[in-house]
Amino acid sequence: MSVPVGAGGTGEGPHHPDTPDPRRLSLNTATVKLRWDLARMIEGCARHGIRGIAPWRDKLAELGVAEAARRIRAADLTVTGLCRGGMFPAADDAGRRAAIDDTRRAVDDAATLGAQCLVLVVGGLPAGSKDLQGARAQVHDGIAAVLPHARAAGVPLAIEPLHPMYAADRACVNTLAQALDLCDALDPGGPGVHARRAIDGMPWAQASALGVAVDAYHVWWDPELDAQIRRAGAARLHAFHVCDWLVPTRDLLEDRGMMGDGVIDLRGLRRKVEAAGFRGLHECEIFSSRDWWQRDPDEVLDVMKARHAAHC
Amino acid sequence: MSVPVGAGGTGEGPHHPDTPDPRRLSLNTATVKLRWDLARMIEGCARHGIRGIAPWRDKLAELGVAEAARRIRAADLTVTGLCRGGMFPAADDAGRRAAIDDTRRAVDDAATLGAQCLVLVVGGLPAGSKDLQGARAQVHDGIAAVLPHARAAGVPLAIEPLHPMYAADRACVNTLAQALDLCDALDPGGPGVHARRAIDGMPWAQASALGVAVDAYHVWWDPELDAQIRRAGAARLHAFHVCDWLVPTRDLLEDRGMMGDGVIDLRGLRRKVEAAGFRGLHECEIFSSRDWWQRDPDEVLDVMKARHAAHC
Repeated sequence: MSVPVGAGGTGEGPHHPDTPDPRRLSLNTATVKLRWDLARMIEGCARHGIRGIAPWRDKLAELGVAEAARRIRAADLTVTGLCRGGMFPAADDAGRRAAIDDTRRAVDDAATLGAQCLVLVVGGLPAGSKDLQGARAQVHDGIAAVLPHARAAGVPLAIEPLHPMYAADRACVNTLAQALDLCDALDPGGPGVHARRAIDGMPWAQASALGVAVDAYHVWWDPELDAQIRRAGAARLHAFHVCDWLVPTRDLLEDRGMMGDGVIDLRGLRRKVEAAGFRGLHECEIFSSRDWWQRDPDEVLDVMKARHAAHC
Repeated sequence: MSVPVGAGGTGEGPHHPDTPDPRRLSLNTATVKLRWDLARMIEGCARHGIRGIAPWRDKLAELGVAEAARRIRAADLTVTGLCRGGMFPAADDAGRRAAIDDTRRAVDDAATLGAQCLVLVVGGLPAGSKDLQGARAQVHDGIAAVLPHARAAGVPLAIEPLHPMYAADRACVNTLAQALDLCDALDPGGPGVHARRAIDGMPWAQASALGVAVDAYHVWWDPELDAQIRRAGAARLHAFHVCDWLVPTRDLLEDRGMMGDGVIDLRGLRRKVEAAGFRGLHECEIFSSRDWWQRDPDEVLDVMKARHAAHC
C-alpha cells in the first residue's frame, strides 16, 4: 500500500518533525473499541491509509493471535505496541505469580505479532494497601522476573508511566524519571539490542530490552519532561502515544480528547521525542466513552488523520 | 479554652508523631463551606475543641476581615493559612497585574488575621494557551512581584503544588521539587525570618518568606516526596493539609475523601513532615460535593476529629 507524502514538505523529508506526515500515524485499538472488532480495525487502517496498529489483548482474543498476526502482516501494518502486560502488585504471592505469568504470555503474543514493544501498565496498590513504596518494589521485582523471557523473545518492554491520578488503581510508576530509574536499575547500560522496523527507510536506533512508552496524556504536565526525554534517548524510547487533555476533564478514565481539542502542545512534544532519536509511529489512543467511542469509527479515523496532520 | 491531651501518650509528649493529638487539628473552611458561614465555623471550631482554622477569602468577605480576625482571636484559634492568592498566568498584562494586585490584598488580609501563611494556588494555562513553560515563567514573575510586599507585611507565602490533574486550569506548579526550585530561586538561602505561633509550647523554627504547603491529596503519589520534604525543611514547611484519595475518584475537583476512607498513608506523611521540622497544625481540607458537603457540619467535625486521631 502506498500513501502520499503530506503537503508542506521542506525538502528535509520525513525526518523533519515540523512536517505533517500521515505515514507516521498508528491506531491504538482503544480509540474505536466499542464499535469495531479487530478484523474491522485492521481493514479500516488499510482502507484509511493508516500504517500502524496497536492492539489490546481483549481485541486480540477475538481473532486469536496467529490469525491476527497474519491479517496485520497482510495489511502491511506496523504493530507499534501490544497493550498490555504488567499489573504486578498483588496482595499475595499467587497474585504476583499470576501477573508475571500473564505478562510472559503477553511477551509471546507480542513476539508473534512482531510488535515493536510490549507496553507495561505496571499496576497500583493491592486492594486495602496504602504501601506505595511496597507496590513500587513489587513492580521492580515483577519486571525483573519478566525481562529474561522478553530478551529471549526479542520483545522490548516499554514501561508506560501513567498520570499520577492513576497511582492508586492502575500504575504506581507516574513519571518518566521513575520509569527510567527502573530501566537503569534492571537493564543497566541499556544498549540497543532489538531491531526496529524502519519507517520508509528512516534509520532508527536499535531498542533496549527495557524502555518507556511516552504518552502525551500522562506526561505533558511534568516539569522534568524535556530532560527525561533526552535521558531516555533513542534506545529507550519505544513508543509515543498521542491524544489531548480536555479542559474541563469530566472523568478520570474515559474523557480524553482528540488531538487539537485540548491543551497539550503535541507538536512540541513530537519535536522533543524525535530530537532524542525516536523514529517510530505516533500512536493515537483515546478513551472517550461519551464522545469518540459513540461515533462511526470511519469518521473517527478521518478526524484522527486530519488532526494528526494539523497538531502532531 | 483548654483541650485535653489525646489518649495514648508515650511520655514523649505532643512532639511525637505517633501520638494522636487533637490539639493539632485545624479546619479549612472548604470542608463545611456549603452549610456554614464563617461565623458559624469559628463558633463550631471553638465548640468542638478544634484549635485552628484556615479561611477562604469568599468566607472572609462575609464578615469583613477585621471582624473575622476579632472573632478568630476571641476564640483563640490559630489561622493555619489564608486561602488563597495566586492565579498569576493571564493572557495579557492587565490580567497579570490584576492577579498580582489581588494577591497583595490577600497578603494584607493574611496579616490582619495573623495567618501563619498565605497559600498560593499559582494558576494554570491562560485561556487558549498551550504554553506551559510560559505559564510557569509567569508564575515565577508573579511571585517575585508579590514577595517584597509579603516580606514587609510579615506574611510567609506558601506555594501549594497541586496534583498534576490541575496543571491546565488551576496550578502549573505540580510537584514539591518544582515549588522548592521556585523558593530557592526567589528566596535564596531562605532563612527563617517570620515568627510562628507555638502550639502548646512546641518550638517551631522561624518561617522563610517563601515556602510550601504540603497537601497530602496533591503530593502523596510523588516518587520524590520523601527527599523533597527533607529538602524543604522546617523553614519552608508552612502548612500541612490532610484529606484522602478515594478509589475510585468520581470527580477531579470535588470528590476528596475523609481521612481513612482512601489510600493515603497519612500518618506516614505526618511523620515525614514532622521529622523535617514541621510543628504546625494539620489542616483538614475536603472538597466533597456529593458526600461531606451535604452533611450536618457538626457531624463532619465530629468525624474529622475521630479520623484525625485514628489516621493522622
